[in-house]
Amino acid sequence: MTELNGAQSLIRTLVDSGVEVCFANPGTSEMHFVAALDAVPAMRGVLGLFEGVVTGAADGYARIAGKPAATLLHLGPGLGNGLANLHNARRAHSPIVNVIGDHATYHKQYDAPLESDISAVAGSLNGWLHRCERTADVGADAARAVAAAQDAPGRIATLILPADVSWGEGGETAEPVEPNGPRPVAAATVQEIADIVAGGETVALLIGGAACREAGLRATSRIAQATGARALVETFPARLERGAGLPAVERLGYLAELATRQLDGAAHVILAGAKSPVSFFAYPGKASVLVPGRAQVHVLADDADDVVQALEDLAELVAAKTEPVLQAAARPDLPSGPLTLQSWVEVIGALLPERAIIADEANTSGLLLPAATAGAPRHDVLTLTGGSIGFGMPVATGAAVAAPDRPVINLQSDGSAMYTISALWTQARENLNVTTVVLNNRAYAILRMELQRVGAEGHGPMANELLDLSRPDIDFVKIAEGMGVPATRATTAEELAEQFERAVAEPGPHLIDALVPSPL
Amino acid sequence: MTELNGAQSLIRTLVDSGVEVCFANPGTSEMHFVAALDAVPAMRGVLGLFEGVVTGAADGYARIAGKPAATLLHLGPGLGNGLANLHNARRAHSPIVNVIGDHATYHKQYDAPLESDISAVAGSLNGWLHRCERTADVGADAARAVAAAQDAPGRIATLILPADVSWGEGGETAEPVEPNGPRPVAAATVQEIADIVAGGETVALLIGGAACREAGLRATSRIAQATGARALVETFPARLERGAGLPAVERLGYLAELATRQLDGAAHVILAGAKSPVSFFAYPGKASVLVPGRAQVHVLADDADDVVQALEDLAELVAAKTEPVLQAAARPDLPSGPLTLQSWVEVIGALLPERAIIADEANTSGLLLPAATAGAPRHDVLTLTGGSIGFGMPVATGAAVAAPDRPVINLQSDGSAMYTISALWTQARENLNVTTVVLNNRAYAILRMELQRVGAEGHGPMANELLDLSRPDIDFVKIAEGMGVPATRATTAEELAEQFERAVAEPGPHLIDALVPSPL
Repeated sequence: MTELNGAQSLIRTLVDSGVEVCFANPGTSEMHFVAALDAVPAMRGVLGLFEGVVTGAADGYARIAGKPAATLLHLGPGLGNGLANLHNARRAHSPIVNVIGDHATYHKQYDAPLESDISAVAGSLNGWLHRCERTADVGADAARAVAAAQDAPGRIATLILPADVSWGEGGETAEPVEPNGPRPVAAATVQEIADIVAGGETVALLIGGAACREAGLRATSRIAQATGARALVETFPARLERGAGLPAVERLGYLAELATRQLDGAAHVILAGAKSPVSFFAYPGKASVLVPGRAQVHVLADDADDVVQALEDLAELVAAKTEPVLQAAARPDLPSGPLTLQSWVEVIGALLPERAIIADEANTSGLLLPAATAGAPRHDVLTLTGGSIGFGMPVATGAAVAAPDRPVINLQSDGSAMYTISALWTQARENLNVTTVVLNNRAYAILRMELQRVGAEGHGPMANELLDLSRPDIDFVKIAEGMGVPATRATTAEELAEQFERAVAEPGPHLIDALVPSPL
Repeated sequence: MTELNGAQSLIRTLVDSGVEVCFANPGTSEMHFVAALDAVPAMRGVLGLFEGVVTGAADGYARIAGKPAATLLHLGPGLGNGLANLHNARRAHSPIVNVIGDHATYHKQYDAPLESDISAVAGSLNGWLHRCERTADVGADAARAVAAAQDAPGRIATLILPADVSWGEGGETAEPVEPNGPRPVAAATVQEIADIVAGGETVALLIGGAACREAGLRATSRIAQATGARALVETFPARLERGAGLPAVERLGYLAELATRQLDGAAHVILAGAKSPVSFFAYPGKASVLVPGRAQVHVLADDADDVVQALEDLAELVAAKTEPVLQAAARPDLPSGPLTLQSWVEVIGALLPERAIIADEANTSGLLLPAATAGAPRHDVLTLTGGSIGFGMPVATGAAVAAPDRPVINLQSDGSAMYTISALWTQARENLNVTTVVLNNRAYAILRMELQRVGAEGHGPMANELLDLSRPDIDFVKIAEGMGVPATRATTAEELAEQFERAVAEPGPHLIDALVPSPL
């Protein structure tokens, strides 16, 4: 066997550790990594034209594949461009292995133009961070990074790879390292929670993380059914399984006013893989904490615990003979007439294909979506866990790479779309089965709402100008076609239905520019 | 006078301190700032659809206006999205005042979804950084920020503004604070350098920063003319004045091979506002330092010194009676036939309008540009100081806001264009006089070159795939039209000439998708 350089040992180790895809936006300091890809065909390189596409795609991939992809980023500015979607991925607990090229070790002292403090920026992700120092260690560093990314509940692992460590000879592949799985929850803890749940007081059971998939939902439904506990899903789950044949568990509202109502009257709030609910933002004169004042908060399982097993154990204690309540199959009728906030979601609900993955960045336009799709065929919903917009198109891209046999539906607000719009090009290049529906209301509608909610007074034309996306109107059909994605425009429910049905049926990406009214 | 909230005191103080433009991409935590804009009409809000557009525009504005604009960014992810162009701005010493909204002080403890370590990320910019703690102090904080941004030679000043500090009552405007100007260079230092320059050994005089404008260039030309010193401009000047009637000073090459030749034989390298030259990247077996081994490096003025005065003082000592050599007016003939790397730059050289500002991100496509425009009417060139691509379109946008009466020409590589493409929308909304010429060679051509230069071997189809921008070809005409910018496509020199002349003559933005061959 010929000697390996650092990059070759890195890629081989990644592949041996189960990492098969690298979303990449490389530069000069990553050229040896790029060159090494051809020697390891098991690693698939997917080019993004912007690092926010790369990191968002890695997030979407992780949410669906359940294992990490690698990213390839160019020094500190490349990491900066990818930071917002890494923030969302961090909140989703998505395992990701970032490979960030850096200047050669001996070159850093010269403060060349691209020199910056990569560690400071990467450190803000609160994940696992390591700078490779020696070519001989790169393989072992990579194996540890892959394991660190998958330590329960999943996190961002970042390897900073200096160019000379990458091109140096003497690389050694390393064996996979076993990640730390979820911690078991003590039987005593489960029993304590069981006593509370069965104690006759009003209980809210808030589930999150891994509990939002079938097994956790079934246990949750049994508990709620047997005890009367009010079951809720965290506001922004990384991956929520729902639809016909699965228990339907309501999500906690984004609006504090709504969430407070959902939790109203609870004497106990039980957390199962979810954080204690707080307001997304602070508002003058309103509470940050959404738990009712007199309620006690109890933790069944935190996000590093085996929340699914804990819920199943709890169900055995309080609901041994109770079956979950499953959502019946039901779809809205196809609507007609102009697109409205109600009619567009009915179209999606009526036509959502089997086994769909929804990347949901519909924001205010999607307020009515959950009800319209509740009884649609079983599907996954990926949501905006970290609140940093520009996540939908990249996450849809990565999800489609992870599940080429499933239809991916990206429900996408117009303003948010523009942060990472070049994801469309990657979708075209890779011929991914993504149908993007842009909800084009020509406004940052959520900010119009928030401007009122924060009680900001005296605003006039300039304030409105900064929340307005008309002048000029954005033509997403042209933008999509400019990146090789076939696109159409829908202004009526009939048009949306006809175009959506066709887009989903045809292989490859499509975009529908759906002109919807702004709710505000 | 009614009481001010924090946001109002901030904006009034910014205006009183000379900050008249705020490039903004706001979110909920910035809504009081947005609402306050209408109360202070002297502050112009300019919306960008992505934070990299916002920060790049602030960089372009600062380079042309010579004073800071503000940015308005949404928490840590907003800063992350803006980080790459702040990196370039830092390298350009552009004064910028970032205003970053954060969660309310009492809300941070709850680790709400958008919570992140803003200070760690902002700290990586090595500028001035302050978190506002009390509403009553916001005005004074703002005045200090504006001054800090303008301390010689200019830097990034970042104010983190918690939402409750912004909406709280009791804001007080503050008087402007005088920034620290450039430090005078001691006469003894100038005399030492004069002795070296006049000493008969081979001298290279490398100028940068403020020396790249008329006064510095004239002094440099006189020194070179009188002493035989070899004058060079730093590789990536923030703002270089050039063209007919100004001294033409050659730029130090990006390629180490070229730069080494330019410095070859020098016994002394004199630095005047420039850093000691190093290779942009490290390459296996090649030196990082570009100064010849036997040469001595001397500092006439570093970047915080008054480099122009120092050069003028030096000229008085060694070239008292020497006039600068001024570039004669000369334009290439209009070429014909298919676009080539030579013909497209000849079109620009032949037709460059008076008083143009060139935002130059032509990268490999622009290797022949300097010669073709040397004798064109006097113009400014803004270059990629920090090496982080995606700078051209935003910087052109900000330059056009700063100088609405001047034609801005953005010479823009295709790959780099896609990072911050939504700058076109801001150009359309603000009706800015920007003519963008996309040099569309359907490749990351510079990386094809770098792949060879770093000596990466054995690369094949997958490596080439990651450097290729075809499949699908990007149609910049459609993308521009989708954002409200009129656009055309040029495949011949005649078409480019006709389209460029028309674009420059018509008010508002235009884009030309110029299909050029890849040099590699």
